[in-house]
Amino acid sequence: MDILKRAILGTTVLAIAGGSFALLADEPIQPIEPVKSINLAQVELGKKLYFDPRLSKSGFISCNSCHNLSMGGTDNLKTSIGHNWQQGPINAPTVLNSSLNLAQFWDGRAADLKAQAGGPIANPGEMAFTHTLAISVLESIPAYVTEFKQVFDSDKIDIDQVTQAIAEFEKTLVTPNSRFDRWLLGDKDALTAAELKGYQLFKSSGCVACHNGPAVGGNSFQKMGVVEPYQAKSPAEGLSAVTGKDADRFMFKVPTLRNVEMTYPYFHDGEAETLTEAVDVMGRLQLGRKFSTEENALIVDFLKSLTGDQPAFALPILPPSTDTTPQPKPFS
Amino acid sequence: MDILKRAILGTTVLAIAGGSFALLADEPIQPIEPVKSINLAQVELGKKLYFDPRLSKSGFISCNSCHNLSMGGTDNLKTSIGHNWQQGPINAPTVLNSSLNLAQFWDGRAADLKAQAGGPIANPGEMAFTHTLAISVLESIPAYVTEFKQVFDSDKIDIDQVTQAIAEFEKTLVTPNSRFDRWLLGDKDALTAAELKGYQLFKSSGCVACHNGPAVGGNSFQKMGVVEPYQAKSPAEGLSAVTGKDADRFMFKVPTLRNVEMTYPYFHDGEAETLTEAVDVMGRLQLGRKFSTEENALIVDFLKSLTGDQPAFALPILPPSTDTTPQPKPFS
Repeated sequence: MDILKRAILGTTVLAIAGGSFALLADEPIQPIEPVKSINLAQVELGKKLYFDPRLSKSGFISCNSCHNLSMGGTDNLKTSIGHNWQQGPINAPTVLNSSLNLAQFWDGRAADLKAQAGGPIANPGEMAFTHTLAISVLESIPAYVTEFKQVFDSDKIDIDQVTQAIAEFEKTLVTPNSRFDRWLLGDKDALTAAELKGYQLFKSSGCVACHNGPAVGGNSFQKMGVVEPYQAKSPAEGLSAVTGKDADRFMFKVPTLRNVEMTYPYFHDGEAETLTEAVDVMGRLQLGRKFSTEENALIVDFLKSLTGDQPAFALPILPPSTDTTPQPKPFS
Repeated sequence: MDILKRAILGTTVLAIAGGSFALLADEPIQPIEPVKSINLAQVELGKKLYFDPRLSKSGFISCNSCHNLSMGGTDNLKTSIGHNWQQGPINAPTVLNSSLNLAQFWDGRAADLKAQAGGPIANPGEMAFTHTLAISVLESIPAYVTEFKQVFDSDKIDIDQVTQAIAEFEKTLVTPNSRFDRWLLGDKDALTAAELKGYQLFKSSGCVACHNGPAVGGNSFQKMGVVEPYQAKSPAEGLSAVTGKDADRFMFKVPTLRNVEMTYPYFHDGEAETLTEAVDVMGRLQLGRKFSTEENALIVDFLKSLTGDQPAFALPILPPSTDTTPQPKPFS
C-alpha cells in the first residue's frame, strides 16, 4: 500500500552522487527544479539589459541595483533607493525564484515577470525613465540593434521585447540544490537534527499553511496581521490598491522563503531586521503563537537550510553608447 | 643592422594561432601584458569587496557602482553620483589597466591602487563611510572573517588588508588582446587601413608624446591646455592640490586610452561627450592643431582599436550579513 501510494503520488527516484534517493512526496514543500526550457538567446540579451543602467534616467540605476544578484536578488535595504536618492515605499522583493510567484510586486499588480519588468524603468521614484527613451537609448547602440534583431527577428526594438528578454533572464534565476531540497530528495544527512526539528515545528505550528510549494511561499495573498493587527508605519496597503476592495487591505503576496538568510530585512516594509524578529512577529500576528527562544531558533535554523545555489554567470559586458545615444541626466 | 637593432631592442617572436609574429619593438605603444604574478586568494576576496555595497554608509554604493566592470570600468557619467545623490567633482577614471598608472586619481594623490582603494570608502561625497565602520561590518560576517584569516593569516581584519585585497583584484583588470595589440604583435591584418592611418597620424601629430607606453597614457602628468588655455567649469585644479605648487595648476594625470570607446565621457571633468570632441579639443589645446574632419575620424578609428578583452569572471556572491552587522543608513 505504501509503495502503491508513493507511486500514485509520483515519487521520483533520482540518482544523486551515485546513490538512489526517493523524493518525499508527502511534504508541503517541493524542491526547486532546475530550468528546463528557456530561450537562451533571450536570456543572454536579458542579462545585459538587467545590468544596464542606461535604462534609467540617471544612467546609474539598473535592475541589479535593487535586485542585486550578489546579494540574494535584493538590495538588503528596508526600502530601496531610487532616482535622486528617493526613498522607495516598499521593500524590494527578491528576484530569485520569482518566476514561481503567482503574480509580481507585493500587491500582485503585475501578472508575470514580463509585466513587472517595465514598471521600475518608468516609475518616477525608481529608474525615472520612460519606455520611449529607453528604446531610444537601445536603438542608438549598434550591438544592441543587432542582438535584438537576432533574438526577435524584427527591425524595430520595442519595450515588449525588452521586458520579454529581461523576464526570460529572470526565469533562469532559480536556486536549486539547497540543503533542504537535498533532504527532500532523500539525502537524510543533508539537514542537521536542529534544522529538521525546526522544519517539523514550521509545519506543526502552521507556518506552512502559507509558506508552501516549491518557493515556500509566493503562491497566495494573505492578510498581514491575522490574529493581531500589524502596526505598520508604511503606507502600503497591499492588494486593495489593485482591486479597490476594502477586504483586500493589508493583503500582501506571501514572500518566498527561499534564500531567506540572504534577503533581509523582512516583510513588505522591511521592518524586521532579523529572521528571529520575523519569525516572532509572524508567530504572534499570523498564528497567535509566541514561539519560545528555543523554538524560534529551531525555525531559523530550518530557514537557513533554504539557501540554494546562487546564480552563476559571468558579469555581462555592455556594448558602449555611441555619439547619438541620448545622454543620461543624473542631476536634472 | 636592422636585424641587430631589433634584437637589441628585445623583439619578441611569439607564436599566435599557429603563426609566428614579431613584436614591433620601435613603436611608442607596447601591448598590454596578461597578468603573470598574482595572489589569487587575495584576488577572490578583493573581488567580493569590490562588489560589496556594505562598505558604504548607505549599503548601496560599491566600488563597482562608479567603476562598473560591465561598462569599461567607469560609470559613463560626466561626474559620479555619491552618497545621497551628491554630485562628484570629477569624472570617474577607468579602473581597467589602472595598475599601469604612475599614480592614482586624476591628481595623483594616491601612490598606488592600495592607497587609492581606501579613499572613496571614507569620502563623505562618495561612499560616506568610515574605515572603522567598514571593518565592523566585515567582522560581523563569519564568512568574511574566515576568508580574511585564510588570506592574511591574521585574527583581526584591518583596512590595510581590505585595500590590499581590492588592489590585488584590480591588478587583474588588464585588457590584453585588443586589435591594436594584435597588430603590434605582428598580425598585419588586425587593423584596417583607416585605423593604421589613424595611428600614423596619432604619432606624427604628437598625441603620442603623452599617450604612450602599454596604457597609451597613465605614465605622466601634463597640463590641460598647453597651447590654448582650457576653459574649465570644474573647480578641479589637478596636481597643485597635492603639491601646493602654482606651477602644477591644471596638471592632470594623462588618462589611459585603452578601451577609450567604452570610457566616455572624456577629460577630468567629463566635458567631452564624444571621442570626436575629445580629439578635436586635444588637437587644438595641446598640439595647436585643428584636425580636419577626415583626420579626426581616422584618429577615432585608431582609438577604437584599443578595446581589449574585458574582465571575464563570475559575478561574486556576497556572504550575508548577520544579526550583529551594523545596519546601513541610506537615509540618515
